[in-house]
Amino acid sequence: MSRWVYDFADGSKDMRELLGGKGANVAEMTRVLGPDRVPAGFTITTEACVEYMNADQSEPEGMSEQVADALDRLQEQAGKTLGDRDDPLLVSVRSGARESMPGMLDTVLNLGLNDESVLGLAKTTDNERFAWDSYRRFVQMFGNVSRGIPGESFEDAIKAAKQARDVTEDTELDADALKELTETFKGVYQEETGDEFPQDPQEQLRLAIRAVFDSWTGKRAVEYRRQNRIPDEWGTAVNVQQMVFGNKGDTSGSGVAFSRDEVTGAPEPSGDFLQNAQGEDVVSGVRTPRDISEIKEWMPEVHDQLMEILHSLEAHYEDMQDTEFTVEDGQLYMLQTRNAKRPAQAAVRFAVDAVSEQLLTRERALATIDPSTLDALLHPTFDPKAEFDVLASGVNASPGAAKGEIVFTAAAAVDAAEQGRDVILVRPFTDAEDVAGFYAAKGVLTSEGGKASHAALVARGMGLPAVVGAQALAIDLESKTVSVNGTELSEGDAIAIDGTKGFVTTDDVPLVEAQVNENFQTVLQWADELRRMEVRANADNPDDARRARELGAQGIGLCRTEHMFIAEDRQPKMRAMIMSDTHEARREALGELLPLQQEDFEGIFEAMAGLPVTVRLLDPPLHEFLPNAEDLAAQVERARIEESDDLERLEKLLARVHEIAEENPMLGTRGCRLGILYPEIYEMQVRAIMRAAKAASEPPHLEIMIPLVDYEQELEIIRELVTSIGEDEGLTVGDDYTVGTMIELPRACFVADRIARFADFFSFGTNDLTQTALGFSRDDVESAFVPTYMERKIIDRSPFETIDKPGVGWLVRLASWVGREAQPDLKLGICGEHGGDPESVVFFHRAGLDYVSCSPYRVPIARIAAAQANVEYPVGRWD
Amino acid sequence: MSRWVYDFADGSKDMRELLGGKGANVAEMTRVLGPDRVPAGFTITTEACVEYMNADQSEPEGMSEQVADALDRLQEQAGKTLGDRDDPLLVSVRSGARESMPGMLDTVLNLGLNDESVLGLAKTTDNERFAWDSYRRFVQMFGNVSRGIPGESFEDAIKAAKQARDVTEDTELDADALKELTETFKGVYQEETGDEFPQDPQEQLRLAIRAVFDSWTGKRAVEYRRQNRIPDEWGTAVNVQQMVFGNKGDTSGSGVAFSRDEVTGAPEPSGDFLQNAQGEDVVSGVRTPRDISEIKEWMPEVHDQLMEILHSLEAHYEDMQDTEFTVEDGQLYMLQTRNAKRPAQAAVRFAVDAVSEQLLTRERALATIDPSTLDALLHPTFDPKAEFDVLASGVNASPGAAKGEIVFTAAAAVDAAEQGRDVILVRPFTDAEDVAGFYAAKGVLTSEGGKASHAALVARGMGLPAVVGAQALAIDLESKTVSVNGTELSEGDAIAIDGTKGFVTTDDVPLVEAQVNENFQTVLQWADELRRMEVRANADNPDDARRARELGAQGIGLCRTEHMFIAEDRQPKMRAMIMSDTHEARREALGELLPLQQEDFEGIFEAMAGLPVTVRLLDPPLHEFLPNAEDLAAQVERARIEESDDLERLEKLLARVHEIAEENPMLGTRGCRLGILYPEIYEMQVRAIMRAAKAASEPPHLEIMIPLVDYEQELEIIRELVTSIGEDEGLTVGDDYTVGTMIELPRACFVADRIARFADFFSFGTNDLTQTALGFSRDDVESAFVPTYMERKIIDRSPFETIDKPGVGWLVRLASWVGREAQPDLKLGICGEHGGDPESVVFFHRAGLDYVSCSPYRVPIARIAAAQANVEYPVGRWD
Repeated sequence: MSRWVYDFADGSKDMRELLGGKGANVAEMTRVLGPDRVPAGFTITTEACVEYMNADQSEPEGMSEQVADALDRLQEQAGKTLGDRDDPLLVSVRSGARESMPGMLDTVLNLGLNDESVLGLAKTTDNERFAWDSYRRFVQMFGNVSRGIPGESFEDAIKAAKQARDVTEDTELDADALKELTETFKGVYQEETGDEFPQDPQEQLRLAIRAVFDSWTGKRAVEYRRQNRIPDEWGTAVNVQQMVFGNKGDTSGSGVAFSRDEVTGAPEPSGDFLQNAQGEDVVSGVRTPRDISEIKEWMPEVHDQLMEILHSLEAHYEDMQDTEFTVEDGQLYMLQTRNAKRPAQAAVRFAVDAVSEQLLTRERALATIDPSTLDALLHPTFDPKAEFDVLASGVNASPGAAKGEIVFTAAAAVDAAEQGRDVILVRPFTDAEDVAGFYAAKGVLTSEGGKASHAALVARGMGLPAVVGAQALAIDLESKTVSVNGTELSEGDAIAIDGTKGFVTTDDVPLVEAQVNENFQTVLQWADELRRMEVRANADNPDDARRARELGAQGIGLCRTEHMFIAEDRQPKMRAMIMSDTHEARREALGELLPLQQEDFEGIFEAMAGLPVTVRLLDPPLHEFLPNAEDLAAQVERARIEESDDLERLEKLLARVHEIAEENPMLGTRGCRLGILYPEIYEMQVRAIMRAAKAASEPPHLEIMIPLVDYEQELEIIRELVTSIGEDEGLTVGDDYTVGTMIELPRACFVADRIARFADFFSFGTNDLTQTALGFSRDDVESAFVPTYMERKIIDRSPFETIDKPGVGWLVRLASWVGREAQPDLKLGICGEHGGDPESVVFFHRAGLDYVSCSPYRVPIARIAAAQANVEYPVGRWD
Repeated sequence: MSRWVYDFADGSKDMRELLGGKGANVAEMTRVLGPDRVPAGFTITTEACVEYMNADQSEPEGMSEQVADALDRLQEQAGKTLGDRDDPLLVSVRSGARESMPGMLDTVLNLGLNDESVLGLAKTTDNERFAWDSYRRFVQMFGNVSRGIPGESFEDAIKAAKQARDVTEDTELDADALKELTETFKGVYQEETGDEFPQDPQEQLRLAIRAVFDSWTGKRAVEYRRQNRIPDEWGTAVNVQQMVFGNKGDTSGSGVAFSRDEVTGAPEPSGDFLQNAQGEDVVSGVRTPRDISEIKEWMPEVHDQLMEILHSLEAHYEDMQDTEFTVEDGQLYMLQTRNAKRPAQAAVRFAVDAVSEQLLTRERALATIDPSTLDALLHPTFDPKAEFDVLASGVNASPGAAKGEIVFTAAAAVDAAEQGRDVILVRPFTDAEDVAGFYAAKGVLTSEGGKASHAALVARGMGLPAVVGAQALAIDLESKTVSVNGTELSEGDAIAIDGTKGFVTTDDVPLVEAQVNENFQTVLQWADELRRMEVRANADNPDDARRARELGAQGIGLCRTEHMFIAEDRQPKMRAMIMSDTHEARREALGELLPLQQEDFEGIFEAMAGLPVTVRLLDPPLHEFLPNAEDLAAQVERARIEESDDLERLEKLLARVHEIAEENPMLGTRGCRLGILYPEIYEMQVRAIMRAAKAASEPPHLEIMIPLVDYEQELEIIRELVTSIGEDEGLTVGDDYTVGTMIELPRACFVADRIARFADFFSFGTNDLTQTALGFSRDDVESAFVPTYMERKIIDRSPFETIDKPGVGWLVRLASWVGREAQPDLKLGICGEHGGDPESVVFFHRAGLDYVSCSPYRVPIARIAAAQANVEYPVGRWD
């Protein structure tokens, strides 16, 4: 016969599917701490629930016998009997599914109370009021859960009782009143169901178990599962557990305890407790709890036990613990334990201490750190304890928090910064002309755009906090005001943004400064020793390059060259180049850009002396360097009406903008396509790069990267262009530099073996690969429908944040595999933003990549994630 | 020892890699016609060439012996000896690579001539001038090819000879002069090379063979191969063949002959010949050739032989032949045969005749038709014989030719049509407002856009000839003129376009009308019996649906619903819907559209009674229904300057346009993403579709198709929406309709098994799949860089024309495979434009698809291609 019931002592945390989350957890605790420390009980399995549902609500064969046996064992262990009139055993009956479904399934407490055992409870607790209150709550809960009696039927009765006694609060009802109310409730039960309230505790238990099973198919739970995409066929387990009471008198109490300080991670347990109270009293805040260190004075042996338990739970779970406990008549019971959620500094301190205490190995210690929280150590944040009103939410485009006065233009930002004032640059969106303002401001806030918008990219590169796409902001640049859901703000008003979470507030939230402290350095050093993958940074100017190196980057994995053309002294030359009609005219215009571009590279190469630097040749479509068509159209219209002399020039410019405008620039004339149409652009860039490398005192390991390759012939042609300039400059491919490609289009992944014949390295551009594989234009979808998709549980986060494994991930694996088949020495890396996302880093490690490259401020996170990946999955590049 | 030399008699057409194209072809003819009909000779293999190159220009071991043996056999067979002073054997030495490389490799004619044999040639041809001319040509060719003597050295000598004799033409030099010139040439040879001109024919041959091998690595050939992406390691074969002379006298001659009439396909051989002439004289047009039927009078036995040969070549190659022949002293030699290129009507007639003559089976006959030429039978074309000047070229967006007066607006087109005048609508680009003009015009010509532009799509759907993106056109709508490379045209001027080829001309080219004749019907009927795949059409209005059915479509594979919202009476309602802020307001606006949309479907369903109709729910992004942002910006600017009352409305409209504008609409909020954000749109559409189906006298097999699915949850959600409306309308999924999805994103292909759980069918949207897999925005790339990519041989045609097999093709195979793994009954089709491309149709057949769907006018082509595919690859859907 199948086994439907497991005593807590027989389960473990690995039996989650069978016993549900709650059942597996309480079983594990019973195993670790022994049966005396955890209120005893048993779990009816999820399989029993599934059987029950499949058999049209009838208990599977043998279940009721097994429940009866388990109950016998429980009564024996407790030394108490269900329904006993002197010292009754009371139990809770709780659901517990594989995944937590908070509030969705049903619970019955105090089961076992009836007209006789209520007297026994009163006697043992010496609290008649408590006993009757427990009984009336049981009738109410049981009636509601088991027979579907609406809550109001009982609430009306309570209201009537209070009116009758002329009191307003439930707590003002005394024992007699509650006893009377219990009778009324039983009447309600009989009236609503036609049955008498069951006095037989076995019958109560049977009905309660059925009720929990039934709740799985209740409307609320079904809807919740549909919303959260939890399969119907999982079923729920039922946990029957002896109740313990922290409110039995002065040697009883309840509390919560952390194995270490939950804010700092300091190695002293912390927590709160209340004497003579139940757990909910501690968290409700009705009474002020005391620090758990005070238990020592109250009941020294309980304090010692608790300390030892916290220590052994920490050792067992290999992590800091967050527990709930109850003391009943001097006996300590542990009700719950879980790995403690904690801020980054506590996580890092725990890891370092745990190793020096020899509690954990470095590998295990490192594994306890959630790398996604580490941003807090690298940027200022809102004080986690601070409360504030969220004025608006946007996309958390660049982490860190900032406060300052609102300014609407770069010029105003620069002025204010010169006067030593902190400002936040607020704009609908930003472009190249606003960049000076970024340097002057403490943070950036826009009402449009997503994580790949100009504002987001520039801010992230600079480590400047930014919230973008805060759609509730109506910004009026002319009147210099911004109105947000009725609040009107003007230039100079104070505002604060949290770029880590995407919040905007006018409250004066205290900030906590970044703290790259000694512990963090220690942990990063371990990570460097434990990881297989290199970590590089994406940087395209000397400042970023230096910062990246300070943060541990082992090179530059992506040096974009387009920003170099946007700077104020270059843009006119770039525009002149684009406006030219012939190769020759373009070559001439480019000639003027060459020395400037060479200078850019010299600074970067100096900062990265001796390390690899991957320079990507020009990638974006040319119209990004021309003015906006709509603005131009308006200017043309104005010039026409005003019969301006400028009309012809404007019309010509607009015509050229039209000529190179594209419906979908992301899929248009960019990347190596530009290099094939206008070889003179790449020629100039390659020359500038090579001359800069030659000028460097210690040259970098130069890697020239060709973007957007689809066909091996494209790479063949551009590789030839690069090496012929190389020959011209006296540099030898293979020795002085290498040539490789971005892999960022699905087709390229399918023909990666052919492409590999012309490549020394692949760098996966997972941003563009995500855009194409999913058909998601990043600029457009992040605000347009990704939020709705997350609400509807179609996705659990943006595919631009964590790599989409079934689609994009497969393409990466495929290209890695066939690329290395064709070319075993092929170096593989990734330079999309996923390079700084811990979960994605684990994926890339497993796919056998050689390095990840991310924005400088994510480098420490990637270092730790790469180490965790290697500890958990110790694979080489070929596994 | 390796075999380096093959006599013609030992080779065949399957040995192309080894013998090169020319060697394999002449060998095959020798095999078929016997050794007497083809001038004898032998081939030195490509492998010998490769060995020779690898061994630093030295002949592989045994090669010279094998050449000597082959030459002995040749001399024996010819009954002549190389260098003989009475009747010398002359040979040609020609290169022949695996792929034709016209003009790139070298040829030496008349080899074997020397100071003695020239006299023999003079004797046997009774033509001294001819003999000396041949000799001096040989010295010149040999010197140039074998020793690299520049052409001018010889040309200068000719010039001097003519001056000395005071003549101007080469032909005016008599035998003596040529004899003298030959001496001069030999002097040039000695001067340039330091060697005497070799008199030993064996030595001549050895040097000539080396010269041909060397020509493979010559600069010209290397460059050609680089341009044409022919591998260097292929090498070239060398063909040594006895020379025959059609100019030996009155019983000699040369000609070309087709096995049937090359224009009509009528079963009488056709062709031209010249008595006492060499082959080049026939094609040069210096003398007027005579029809080959006249050979009968001249040499009846040769005529009979030729007729028989033509017949047997046709039978052997199972196709109409295009041959070259020479008669030397009454002896007929065949020099060349190949399958005849022919216009569609000839191809169709040949197929039908060949079957009734029992020359070919239906299967083989069908295989001789190139389906891509059949457009000519479905649309009027320029007369193939007409000559005209191309004024401009553009994208061949919709096949067929048209002539008419230029008009620049839809209104002008309508006016002209009412007056019975033929017009061509000429515009920079078109939009919904121009559609009335399409109905009135004979053709459409635009200066912007590609094959997926509005003009192209609408024209193709209507079967209206169109050339788009003719960039040389500078259209001035205000002055109603268009200037093209200096030519200025005005409204009313005559113009003609060829949408099949993309030509524009002002010449009055005669048109040939479409001819869906009896032969074509016969062939189509065979195709229907022989194919496995169904052929459907893409149609979204009753006219197109009826036309498609007439052309043999077995249903509609793609009924787009977006055009229905663009019609004049719907657009304001659609705009009102989009301008609404709430679900309710949108629902109200949509309520007004419902009856109109229902009406649209009723007409289509009527036309397709009893057949499957796949209706795709709304796909394009909403801003396509709003006015152009740039126009609006200009209007706003004007309204602002003029302080117009309309300013506020315009500003609000522009703001909304901005709100829903997207950087890359192709990858934005469209397809099922719209359906999830605004379920009310799909609800209305589904209701309209279902009500129309219920109203139909004979309902179609309704298939509701959800576009742009990435995640199975998307399809799950929309499927639920559809079936719940279905319940509401009393229709049952599975019985009354099915629900499926477009597979048009790479990610969807990877998770096709999961998606298949919610799909009754997949329809591959290969247009969008190409756009995403390759990162090619169709609108942008077709004119921007695809032409350059074709020039640079990166691609050989647009991937939107023929499916990209390594990338897009793999995705289709993958999704088919895993989709059917999960759901064996899954119906698979394709509705991208590749459905009408013969090569792609073969691919889809082999991938196991159930049907292709294409534009109505491509249906006959797809029917034939599908049959050819099934004949060549008789696979089922599961093979």
